[in-house]
Amino acid sequence: MIAVAADIDPWGAASIDDYEHLFSAFGIKPFTPFRDRFAGNRYVRRGLIFGHRDFDKIVDAIDENTPWAMMTGLMPSGRFHFGHKMVADEIIWFQRLGGEIFVCAADMESWLMRDISFAEGRRIAVEEYLTNYIALGLEPDKKFHFWFQSDYMTPYYRLRDMASKRVTFNEMQAIYGELSPGKITSVLTQVADILHPQLPEKGGPKPVVVPVGADQDPHIRLTRDIASRLAATREDGNQDFPCLPPAGTYHKFMRGLTGDKMSSSDPATHIALLEDPDEAAKKVMRAKTGGRDTVEEQREKGGTPEDCVVYDLYVYHLIDDDKELTGVYRECTGGERVCGDCKRQCADLVKAFLADHQKNIPAARKKAEKILKDAL
Amino acid sequence: MIAVAADIDPWGAASIDDYEHLFSAFGIKPFTPFRDRFAGNRYVRRGLIFGHRDFDKIVDAIDENTPWAMMTGLMPSGRFHFGHKMVADEIIWFQRLGGEIFVCAADMESWLMRDISFAEGRRIAVEEYLTNYIALGLEPDKKFHFWFQSDYMTPYYRLRDMASKRVTFNEMQAIYGELSPGKITSVLTQVADILHPQLPEKGGPKPVVVPVGADQDPHIRLTRDIASRLAATREDGNQDFPCLPPAGTYHKFMRGLTGDKMSSSDPATHIALLEDPDEAAKKVMRAKTGGRDTVEEQREKGGTPEDCVVYDLYVYHLIDDDKELTGVYRECTGGERVCGDCKRQCADLVKAFLADHQKNIPAARKKAEKILKDAL
Repeated sequence: MIAVAADIDPWGAASIDDYEHLFSAFGIKPFTPFRDRFAGNRYVRRGLIFGHRDFDKIVDAIDENTPWAMMTGLMPSGRFHFGHKMVADEIIWFQRLGGEIFVCAADMESWLMRDISFAEGRRIAVEEYLTNYIALGLEPDKKFHFWFQSDYMTPYYRLRDMASKRVTFNEMQAIYGELSPGKITSVLTQVADILHPQLPEKGGPKPVVVPVGADQDPHIRLTRDIASRLAATREDGNQDFPCLPPAGTYHKFMRGLTGDKMSSSDPATHIALLEDPDEAAKKVMRAKTGGRDTVEEQREKGGTPEDCVVYDLYVYHLIDDDKELTGVYRECTGGERVCGDCKRQCADLVKAFLADHQKNIPAARKKAEKILKDAL
Repeated sequence: MIAVAADIDPWGAASIDDYEHLFSAFGIKPFTPFRDRFAGNRYVRRGLIFGHRDFDKIVDAIDENTPWAMMTGLMPSGRFHFGHKMVADEIIWFQRLGGEIFVCAADMESWLMRDISFAEGRRIAVEEYLTNYIALGLEPDKKFHFWFQSDYMTPYYRLRDMASKRVTFNEMQAIYGELSPGKITSVLTQVADILHPQLPEKGGPKPVVVPVGADQDPHIRLTRDIASRLAATREDGNQDFPCLPPAGTYHKFMRGLTGDKMSSSDPATHIALLEDPDEAAKKVMRAKTGGRDTVEEQREKGGTPEDCVVYDLYVYHLIDDDKELTGVYRECTGGERVCGDCKRQCADLVKAFLADHQKNIPAARKKAEKILKDAL
């Protein structure tokens, strides 16, 4: 596992240039076999969800109509932006595919690692995350489970303590670098978060998919290793905890508007979904593009959409029609499209999207507040 | 804290030769100021409880009739023997002094560190510990709280997680040596155990005394340090957890019957309180004494009670009358008393004690089983 720390850092940078080598180096499998079947999903169709572990088990469960689940966590530490929207869209996709949905608000982690108070964590989880999830289409009344880490029940804590026996210090250090007791607590809590849908109280062992960015794979692998050990039959014939290793899907990342990492804590890098649409439009006009130094040069040589965050916004969120997207790509590389016009088009799309989305917010917020009341 | 690991090892040997240096080296204070007042307690009167931290706060609470508590843990990993009886007697003493009594069965620790199943841990906690506590005089209906670590409620777990933020890896390593995630879990759980009586759900901040052997002082100091940090007012004006650092009393140890450490897992070293009285008597006859090589030499030079585990049994448990004990000491050192006779006397006292004690067991066991049912 030593190699992991150097290659993938789940606590650090979110962007990874070379996704392909993850197949050979870490055993993530290409998502291509599932692409046709799930082509209705833009992220799948465009290869933005590019890899998986054990996703075939999820597909089997769908086909055999047996229980399966999706689990994901949210870190309540800032505004909900277009980067988070991708995960929300995946949650909603899995819900529509029939999975049971488990969402954990990692408020203990945000307190331990980022000093966000529990009260503030609750506020952010509800007002930013749950509200936007629902406004985007999540149905809270349909096989949906939500909990705060700081609230969790005894069997879940017990699971975390059991996990602590089945992992070594060196394994953790190889993944997370320097460890503090608080970081160890965070890591073990996340392992329990991921295994939580398989608690006897939640219906027992079942395939569970965790949609993540590729940088999160070390968490998934660690949890898979611990799950295998917890499920192993011991000398006395017992298992610590019967469970399946979690499955994973792996997606690529949008860059931030500045071309750097998109970050909740730096408003210049992201557009929040509850942001004023006019302000958001202004940010688009300032975004980093793949344009040339002069309009003349661009007309002559064409732009480079691969280096353009405006193009990212189209691909990930704003243009669902593949032909239309291909048209934009060709116009750009062919020099017909220049950045000013393109940014104005994007700004209009962002404004329209936000205005439309924000109409759903008041009703969504009410539902989100109800979830908070019903949470453990 | 680096010095601690070398001097006191809470996970290792139970005997410490030089108690006195703990006063100067670690700030444990002599118990002598309280000796007259609590002379009714044999352990206090004879200096077996020799040290304390903040015990004056407990005395103040007694005098002012304000709430205070005693907390201790039991490790359900073997038979309840005369070494454990000392702690039980202290619990009962504190209960009679009016303290609220908190006893935690450390079944998560026994599972993590000693591979004892949760079912077996429960059985041992009830059949060995609780039953003997009650048979020795604990009143389970009188301000008595009992819980298993693996059962605990959310606020208690949350407290443990909060503690993880207020301690460094190096502090833990200095005390506990090589760390594993399981050991870190155990240590943090124990910190929460000790602070548990101060949870809002348990009446909030109050003086809490933890009676321990001197080798356990690193736990107490670590918990005191963490408590101070949890109670500190942070920049935002809040405290993580309002509490007082726990108080401690420190006792000496009986040696095992073989002269080595008394151990639950080695029956030759201990007499269990549920053991057959005749078998126990035979063990006494085989015990290590402070006798000379021959009776003649002993008649001439006298024995050395300081090196005698039979004498330990008298001091700690079997002879409550100080004059009588002094008589034994003088007879031994004066050569009037030889080991064969002395061991027979001790064996008779042990037999009588066990026979008497075991009469109380059936009724005590019923009460203990009721506690288990009522436990969280």
